[in-house]
Amino acid sequence: MDTGLIHEGERLDDLQISGRYILQDPKRFCFGMDAVLLSGFVSVKPGETVIDLGTGTGILPILLEAKTKGEHFTGLEIQSESADMAQRSVSLNGRNDRISIVCGDIREASGIFGKASFNVVVSNPPYMIADHGIANPSDAKAIARHEICCKLEDLIRETKALLRPDGRCYFVHRPFRLVELLSDMHIAGIEPKRLRMVHPYKDKEPSMVLVEGKKGGRPRLSVEPPLIIYEKDGVYTKEVDEIYGF
Amino acid sequence: MDTGLIHEGERLDDLQISGRYILQDPKRFCFGMDAVLLSGFVSVKPGETVIDLGTGTGILPILLEAKTKGEHFTGLEIQSESADMAQRSVSLNGRNDRISIVCGDIREASGIFGKASFNVVVSNPPYMIADHGIANPSDAKAIARHEICCKLEDLIRETKALLRPDGRCYFVHRPFRLVELLSDMHIAGIEPKRLRMVHPYKDKEPSMVLVEGKKGGRPRLSVEPPLIIYEKDGVYTKEVDEIYGF
Repeated sequence: MDTGLIHEGERLDDLQISGRYILQDPKRFCFGMDAVLLSGFVSVKPGETVIDLGTGTGILPILLEAKTKGEHFTGLEIQSESADMAQRSVSLNGRNDRISIVCGDIREASGIFGKASFNVVVSNPPYMIADHGIANPSDAKAIARHEICCKLEDLIRETKALLRPDGRCYFVHRPFRLVELLSDMHIAGIEPKRLRMVHPYKDKEPSMVLVEGKKGGRPRLSVEPPLIIYEKDGVYTKEVDEIYGF
Repeated sequence: MDTGLIHEGERLDDLQISGRYILQDPKRFCFGMDAVLLSGFVSVKPGETVIDLGTGTGILPILLEAKTKGEHFTGLEIQSESADMAQRSVSLNGRNDRISIVCGDIREASGIFGKASFNVVVSNPPYMIADHGIANPSDAKAIARHEICCKLEDLIRETKALLRPDGRCYFVHRPFRLVELLSDMHIAGIEPKRLRMVHPYKDKEPSMVLVEGKKGGRPRLSVEPPLIIYEKDGVYTKEVDEIYGF
């Protein structure tokens, strides 16, 4: 491993999955459980091509490349420092042949990559509406968390354009925006086919929702059993342990 | 109690809530747990008026009249034999002053009752699409279960018309139709505000979904903790026991 790829202020974390590592900069946005749980919800078939819209650290392409038999994985990231760090994580893992990191805008994704160019689109998009309550909208964390550079409607439009016929997409989002997410997908012709709520504890409100859509799919949603994160304080459930690879 | 109101083939069941009873005819459609759980999800404020679209046995108006301080409750039912039996249940409970049963078509509800005439609309509508797999579409059970006489779009359109500004609606439906339900409500301007999945067991897929909408509401959905029916085989959870009034 070429440790010269690690820049000052960055740390190298062991993902505990097939020997994969990832660079993170605590001053910027670090990946969360959202991305890990999404990686466990995504299904990539052998030979398929995958793009992650707003890849941040590159966590999703790196995890999905390790976990699936997909042919190629692309991560699109608007923030150049994040894209650079994600690219170095790919290099550190020796996966430049299987993962490409591209610096660019989700709103122009189908222009960059061409229409109908992927089998699978994944995204862990900014959850918060517009720039509500933001001190500095150019802040790296703000851009990752709030819809400053990409609104949900942009994400759905570009997802539809990027997907091949019958292609699938996988999103993680907050439950309070579920109506907008499902409606926009349905109207765009990416029919929501699977949905799973993620609850911190079995008797608590969900903190995330995982959704799979199919371009041109017929309406019929399969809602899965709840995914519970904690068995008790500080102790993950067996299922979450398995998704993390523990 | 005037037992002359009980016709041949009908049975009188104790609802175990405030001394209320209900007539059911096992040859026709008997109410299910869906209606009972919906009655526990509905919120009716003192003085409000409520209509149940497709009331069947009259179970929802009878339960809601017993459980809430609403001013008046109406049940609309297209099948005249069901409407007649529901009316006799209301009479048996001595609630003719508080509950009206009307025989009529949901598709014409706003014409029958006038626009903006209720604070609250509730419905446990037919779940199954059109007349898929039906031997006899005039069968009472088929009409109650399948969208023969009322499609989801009819229900939403009439709900919107019947509700006063800021009025609320409460539906129970099957999860496989959640996308259509939420999208149609959102597009009609009845914003889904609360959602609760009902799971037979804590680790199983949901069998029902409860949704509250608000006419003219702003988009922001609150997803509640899962409602689990069985603690173990044949034993209800404490919450379901409480909803049933046990």
